[in-house]
Amino acid sequence: MTPKREAPPAHSTAVVRVLRLPAGETVDDRVAVEEPLELRIDGNPVAVTMRTPGHDEELALGFALSEGLQPVSARLPDDLAVNTIELEAPGFDPARVARSFYTTSSCGVCGKGALEAIAVESPPVESTLTISGTHVGQLPDRLRAAQAAFASTGGLHATGLFTAAGELVSAREDVGRHNAMDKVIGRAFLDGLLPLADHILCVSGRLSFELVQKAAVAGCPVLVAVGAPSSLAVELAVDRGITLCGFVRDGRCNVYSRPERITD
Amino acid sequence: MTPKREAPPAHSTAVVRVLRLPAGETVDDRVAVEEPLELRIDGNPVAVTMRTPGHDEELALGFALSEGLQPVSARLPDDLAVNTIELEAPGFDPARVARSFYTTSSCGVCGKGALEAIAVESPPVESTLTISGTHVGQLPDRLRAAQAAFASTGGLHATGLFTAAGELVSAREDVGRHNAMDKVIGRAFLDGLLPLADHILCVSGRLSFELVQKAAVAGCPVLVAVGAPSSLAVELAVDRGITLCGFVRDGRCNVYSRPERITD
Repeated sequence: MTPKREAPPAHSTAVVRVLRLPAGETVDDRVAVEEPLELRIDGNPVAVTMRTPGHDEELALGFALSEGLQPVSARLPDDLAVNTIELEAPGFDPARVARSFYTTSSCGVCGKGALEAIAVESPPVESTLTISGTHVGQLPDRLRAAQAAFASTGGLHATGLFTAAGELVSAREDVGRHNAMDKVIGRAFLDGLLPLADHILCVSGRLSFELVQKAAVAGCPVLVAVGAPSSLAVELAVDRGITLCGFVRDGRCNVYSRPERITD
Repeated sequence: MTPKREAPPAHSTAVVRVLRLPAGETVDDRVAVEEPLELRIDGNPVAVTMRTPGHDEELALGFALSEGLQPVSARLPDDLAVNTIELEAPGFDPARVARSFYTTSSCGVCGKGALEAIAVESPPVESTLTISGTHVGQLPDRLRAAQAAFASTGGLHATGLFTAAGELVSAREDVGRHNAMDKVIGRAFLDGLLPLADHILCVSGRLSFELVQKAAVAGCPVLVAVGAPSSLAVELAVDRGITLCGFVRDGRCNVYSRPERITD
């Protein structure tokens, strides 16, 4: 028996009419669906994210965890046409969330203290995990193989969660790179896998500050990307003790922090 | 004389130490700088964006325009170490901005009415501009040639503004794709070029809803991308009368809306 691959929700892609040049033919093509999702916590609307529908509970839970909240559950409304989701998160403080969502910054934002001003607090990642450079190099291809909807649209970011042996635990796709990671972390939360001290996260694109922050809050020691990291991504990885691997493609890999976790 | 290329601000890239695998050598490498910028309007902090420093006034002006505001000026503080910028925008209504920044949505967000609920109002784009498919196909390469910092970091998105003849007017880079377009639109505002009825915008990556919205508010009739559009990007382009070209690479081009502006 061949392994069954989970089909993407039908709603993650949509058909559009396209004029192809230089051929000049008009054909049906698929694009990734992008729709707003409003997150409510205890009845308060706290954020609207542009996301690809599907795995919305995971997205909401992962988003809340990344913002330093302690979510209990996420619930879709009875009318699924309404793009809202209700999070239960005891101890939720709207003022604190407003700050962590970057909409205000009472302490000011200065270059020197940027990390302190905007980062969600989390302890340094503790883990004895090691992984071979060869295994790191294989993760992007394994993630791509699991991207069901990318092949048909070319328009979706992905995040994959892997074991130290390089086995895929879960993969999620989204038009937003942050959403894809939120979904994977939300799934891990539901499966009781947090903190991710024995796991590796791999993303299909570039590494922003926010992606490193999500990995840090989830307690993941190794973050692998096909693309380039930003300066603040490297800075936060150093601060939180995360091994950051970028440009992982064509058998090569750049290690920006904590290289001792990468073995031969 | 060879054309002078504007050097990127020194602050747009930073040097980090990198372990290169499988070679095993540790070398200096460059990454794109990512830092927070807090936007204040008439003293109110309204948003914090993670951006690549440089052209911050343009970024603030373009951001404000995209949100439907009527900015007059953007001013950096005397102490440049403080990552804030002050916008002057008469008639600014904090409640309205809160809504348009997607942080709350009093009318709810439903799938059917998503566009109405989240889109910043702007009239249909009016333009008699046409451009040949051959010229469209050349824009990504011309944009890439103008990307001074990408070559050294591989981590920057870009937006370019072009004339109907395919000549580059301005190009800006940023770790955030939306910021790169905000900077170009802010520059065009300062140069008195708005609305961009005789121009074309070209982006280095994928097309989200937000990028189409920025082009629509700036009155630009043609938006070209190297990558894929999302469903809502196509939907908004159709609604606003924008010609949307995606996957513009290797001599090919997909036209998703208003193909009559593309000539042979």
